[in-house]
Amino acid sequence: MIDDDERKIRELLDRWFEATRTGGVDDVLDLMTDDVVFLTPGRAPFGKSQFEQTSRGRPMQVDGRSEIEELEIVGDLAWMRTRIELTMTLPNDELHHRSGHTLSILRKQADGRWLLARDANLLSP
Amino acid sequence: MIDDDERKIRELLDRWFEATRTGGVDDVLDLMTDDVVFLTPGRAPFGKSQFEQTSRGRPMQVDGRSEIEELEIVGDLAWMRTRIELTMTLPNDELHHRSGHTLSILRKQADGRWLLARDANLLSP
Repeated sequence: MIDDDERKIRELLDRWFEATRTGGVDDVLDLMTDDVVFLTPGRAPFGKSQFEQTSRGRPMQVDGRSEIEELEIVGDLAWMRTRIELTMTLPNDELHHRSGHTLSILRKQADGRWLLARDANLLSP
Repeated sequence: MIDDDERKIRELLDRWFEATRTGGVDDVLDLMTDDVVFLTPGRAPFGKSQFEQTSRGRPMQVDGRSEIEELEIVGDLAWMRTRIELTMTLPNDELHHRSGHTLSILRKQADGRWLLARDANLLSP
């Protein structure tokens, strides 16, 4: 059921951006594995707790959209490349735009859900 | 034969750095798939021909070493996270250091060789 898996992965991305937009940090955390690792430029790799800490401390609205440029599913593992555009609105209404690509590893859980497991984020201003 | 595959992937990395160190651009090109995609911060994704062009035009010696922090092999596909340290020596003997992480996708070929297929490179000065 590759098509079903692909649909679930696309839904995962949609949920991610919807939760990010509405500030639903718990909802975003539910979309990643407990051992998730994020790689970003100029910073040590970090995991779920640090993601949570950063997200809760961020006084801004983040609106984003993504396009899956490549997706390959092999059993319970998948990798994808996306192009992402983000607009962050600071409390003073200042806008920051970021765009770029990600390379991610996703893992299918025993219950059939797909979760983000590794994410290299190359977005820049 | 997971162990054999893992050994081949480790050899791929060793060869990559050896070829990079000695300026063997052709040897490096032989270690990647024809459809390879490189992701780096602040730059559009690029492929094999652009990698070659950049490598041949680079008047510097690049000495590097890497450590595989994670490696998972699923059939003919693998992903890995590495930590890399590079020292670039410019023609005027100026040294530049870079370090950071990569997230990569590797693909096993019909002849048993493993090649780099996708590479997100988050190295920074």
